[in-house]
Amino acid sequence: MNFKASIIAGFLKGEIEGDPDIEVNDISKIEEGRPGTLSFLANPKYEKYIYETSASVVLVNKDFKPEKPVKATLIRVDNAYEAFASLLDLYQQSKPQKKGIHKLASIHENVQLGENLYIGDYAVIENNVKIGNNVKIYPQVYIGENVKIGDDTVIYAGVKIYEGCIIGSGCVIHAGAVIGADGFGFAPQDNNNYRKVPQVGIVVIEDNVEIGANTTIDRATLGTTIIRKGVKLDNLIQVAHNVEIGENTVIAAQSGIAGSTKLGKDCMLGGQVGIVGHLTIADKVKIAAQSGVISDVKKEGEILQGSSAIHFKDYWKSYLIFTKLPELRKQLIELAREVKELKNSK
Amino acid sequence: MNFKASIIAGFLKGEIEGDPDIEVNDISKIEEGRPGTLSFLANPKYEKYIYETSASVVLVNKDFKPEKPVKATLIRVDNAYEAFASLLDLYQQSKPQKKGIHKLASIHENVQLGENLYIGDYAVIENNVKIGNNVKIYPQVYIGENVKIGDDTVIYAGVKIYEGCIIGSGCVIHAGAVIGADGFGFAPQDNNNYRKVPQVGIVVIEDNVEIGANTTIDRATLGTTIIRKGVKLDNLIQVAHNVEIGENTVIAAQSGIAGSTKLGKDCMLGGQVGIVGHLTIADKVKIAAQSGVISDVKKEGEILQGSSAIHFKDYWKSYLIFTKLPELRKQLIELAREVKELKNSK
Amino acid sequence: MNFKASIIAGFLKGEIEGDPDIEVNDISKIEEGRPGTLSFLANPKYEKYIYETSASVVLVNKDFKPEKPVKATLIRVDNAYEAFASLLDLYQQSKPQKKGIHKLASIHENVQLGENLYIGDYAVIENNVKIGNNVKIYPQVYIGENVKIGDDTVIYAGVKIYEGCIIGSGCVIHAGAVIGADGFGFAPQDNNNYRKVPQVGIVVIEDNVEIGANTTIDRATLGTTIIRKGVKLDNLIQVAHNVEIGENTVIAAQSGIAGSTKLGKDCMLGGQVGIVGHLTIADKVKIAAQSGVISDVKKEGEILQGSSAIHFKDYWKSYLIFTKLPELRKQLIELAREVKELKNSK
Repeated sequence: MNFKASIIAGFLKGEIEGDPDIEVNDISKIEEGRPGTLSFLANPKYEKYIYETSASVVLVNKDFKPEKPVKATLIRVDNAYEAFASLLDLYQQSKPQKKGIHKLASIHENVQLGENLYIGDYAVIENNVKIGNNVKIYPQVYIGENVKIGDDTVIYAGVKIYEGCIIGSGCVIHAGAVIGADGFGFAPQDNNNYRKVPQVGIVVIEDNVEIGANTTIDRATLGTTIIRKGVKLDNLIQVAHNVEIGENTVIAAQSGIAGSTKLGKDCMLGGQVGIVGHLTIADKVKIAAQSGVISDVKKEGEILQGSSAIHFKDYWKSYLIFTKLPELRKQLIELAREVKELKNSK
Repeated sequence: MNFKASIIAGFLKGEIEGDPDIEVNDISKIEEGRPGTLSFLANPKYEKYIYETSASVVLVNKDFKPEKPVKATLIRVDNAYEAFASLLDLYQQSKPQKKGIHKLASIHENVQLGENLYIGDYAVIENNVKIGNNVKIYPQVYIGENVKIGDDTVIYAGVKIYEGCIIGSGCVIHAGAVIGADGFGFAPQDNNNYRKVPQVGIVVIEDNVEIGANTTIDRATLGTTIIRKGVKLDNLIQVAHNVEIGENTVIAAQSGIAGSTKLGKDCMLGGQVGIVGHLTIADKVKIAAQSGVISDVKKEGEILQGSSAIHFKDYWKSYLIFTKLPELRKQLIELAREVKELKNSK
Repeated sequence: MNFKASIIAGFLKGEIEGDPDIEVNDISKIEEGRPGTLSFLANPKYEKYIYETSASVVLVNKDFKPEKPVKATLIRVDNAYEAFASLLDLYQQSKPQKKGIHKLASIHENVQLGENLYIGDYAVIENNVKIGNNVKIYPQVYIGENVKIGDDTVIYAGVKIYEGCIIGSGCVIHAGAVIGADGFGFAPQDNNNYRKVPQVGIVVIEDNVEIGANTTIDRATLGTTIIRKGVKLDNLIQVAHNVEIGENTVIAAQSGIAGSTKLGKDCMLGGQVGIVGHLTIADKVKIAAQSGVISDVKKEGEILQGSSAIHFKDYWKSYLIFTKLPELRKQLIELAREVKELKNSK
């Protein structure tokens, strides 16, 4: 389907500079722009590409001032990245949507199904599950007994949700994620072995949460592991039993949160971060990639780095000296020599 | 189902303090106790909650001395946590158990099935598999050819076990775990590329092992990767080819053990630990979270921390000074100035 | 099936020392050799086992000079490890191969299937998928719409490939890997929450790539995430949106590469390495396990270690002093005392 620049500009409430009748039917990165595609320029680092791109139409910020001639037709908008994201939304919504309940889905007894569902082949929906409207459940998904799933949620292929867990509305759960496996709880016995502590709690995932591929969120020992609304979890993250993650907190891939820790809202964790159990982390805290947190963080907005983590500026000051330790030791040895000389010369 | 406090006390051989006829039908955390529920107090940190809780019955240690009046009926036992765990066991066993072989399971030829099995929908059991009694295999599990599984083992949804692997009795394997994928073995060739070394060994998992969600245990190149009895592995752990993990060793999430390393028994590894290949680690060794081990650990009971790991006390002494390096450098500069002055003043 | 030593020597163009008529029907590690098996000795560390092994036949390097009598029949070859790998190849190829399309595979419309395929039970092949010749797709695999898969590729149980991704020839993808899940892209909004940026790109995996169990490779936001030919990825690795990994690069388990980073060819990454986004890493770079890379690496063949990573030799010099910081501080305090004395004594 072709769209004229003028139609796109109208939709985005933008201003055209160039040919309003030029047509596009696909999108492209500005550095890989092809004729007939629409691209965007938001990050100034990429400005050089706008002078070379073959994209037919480029979205730019209102205040963009080209330093050289630009071949493409420009559409000026308030925020080129946001505008482009809106078009991506449209683009994705225009694709044919999966729907219907595949005849090879296995739906058990007393299941409540909403309207306008997609349930793929070889999905298993156990007894007493309740699924809202417009939910998409891809093939080979497992939904355990008594699970509840809110409206408009998308669950990709092969996700496993253990019994009793509750998933909100507008969530996206990527392939291979496991929700509600047993927390890691074992009571040490006299003979060095362990007795499993039954994990009878659940996982609650509130609305608009996104969960990455192969991420694991364990059920509570007792009570609930809670992922608050708006949280975004990347791939391969570990969330242990009884953890609570506050609203709109964002966590990058391969991070792990140990049991019963409570993360505030609006936090940001880099990749491969570890947080030990039973801690409380304040709101808006940022933790740099690969850091390890071993005590409560009480200060809102604190920024931490290192293993174990300290204030990031202190970390960098120390780390810089770490890289120069051989020099520092040399200075110390030299100084000791001089002091010895001074003492001897007395 | 309702239980009187007196019945519970009888089962636990505990002593009632309060109303022996009060009834409970669920369990709760003490800080979230509701009427009609049973809770427990083991960790003194939580003592304050016992004076506020609405739980009807609370298990406490025999020697617990309340400092204020307690509304709940108490049951005094030797070990409140253990006693509560016993009740959790009962609670879980009282739930209806999955059983039967679902008509949508795909069971291939020459499979030996024990008694009292559960095999869920879309599970695949390949040729010549042997499964013991009372085994539960959840939906969408894959059991490769010639695999053997002992009695009473539970394999959750979507677990994949490659051909020839051997799983013991009383094991629990959580969703998404992969047992027996190829070890990471490639022989470098002249033109910078690699030739795959076929991985013809297997994985042996002994009795009473628990394996977390999305954990991966690779088959041996030749011979066996062995997880000894009583080992507990958390989620997202990597166990490479030919590794051996000793009895009752416990490993927290996201740790990784490289090829051919031999871990002792009764070891404890924190989360995100890494151990390089071809090492031998003694019994009862403890390794702190995020540590990296690059050489043999010969001392039984050693406690290690850091990357690369050293004795944990030495690590903390050094790390504390690391956080004060800017100060230390300042002292050094000041000292150098003073020495210079002394020299000049001679 | 039994093979005479003479037949094996003929196949390997090796030289027999011992009984040419002795027969073997299995392979073994030299330290666990049993009669009737063939083993090999390549690593001198294992030489002691050749004098004790019960293996009937052992492959050794041409120049191997036994220091004691050896009971086994030897076959001398140019490279015992390579020769053994060739035999492993033969061994594996001699096993019965999976083939045929299982009647419980769900194959949707307009799918192009090559010749000599294996497609297992409960695999789902969506519309418009194109599959080459000799491809093996194990049970419970999900292949999204419009995916293309080259010849001779093996996809193990439960792999999930999202729509539109392209997989080359001769690839091996292990169980639980997820190819093409959404990149982790969210635009911050005014009210602290996030708007999902649709991820409309794809993943391209070139020829002869191996991907480990439960590894995740995200689709590009726009354009492609590319894994170049010959790349080998271990288990539980995270590859973010728009990453490019150069030819023949090898990455150990649990490493993570953040968005838009470009790794050169012939690189080697240890386990649990993290690389931040938008970087360019030169060819032949080596990064030690658990290191974190936060800036471009321009020097071909650079070797890095630490978090954040520096040249590995500098890292070790600094780390060694780090472990001796308490001593260094003591020296500094002692020196300060001496200087004070000197000043006072003037």
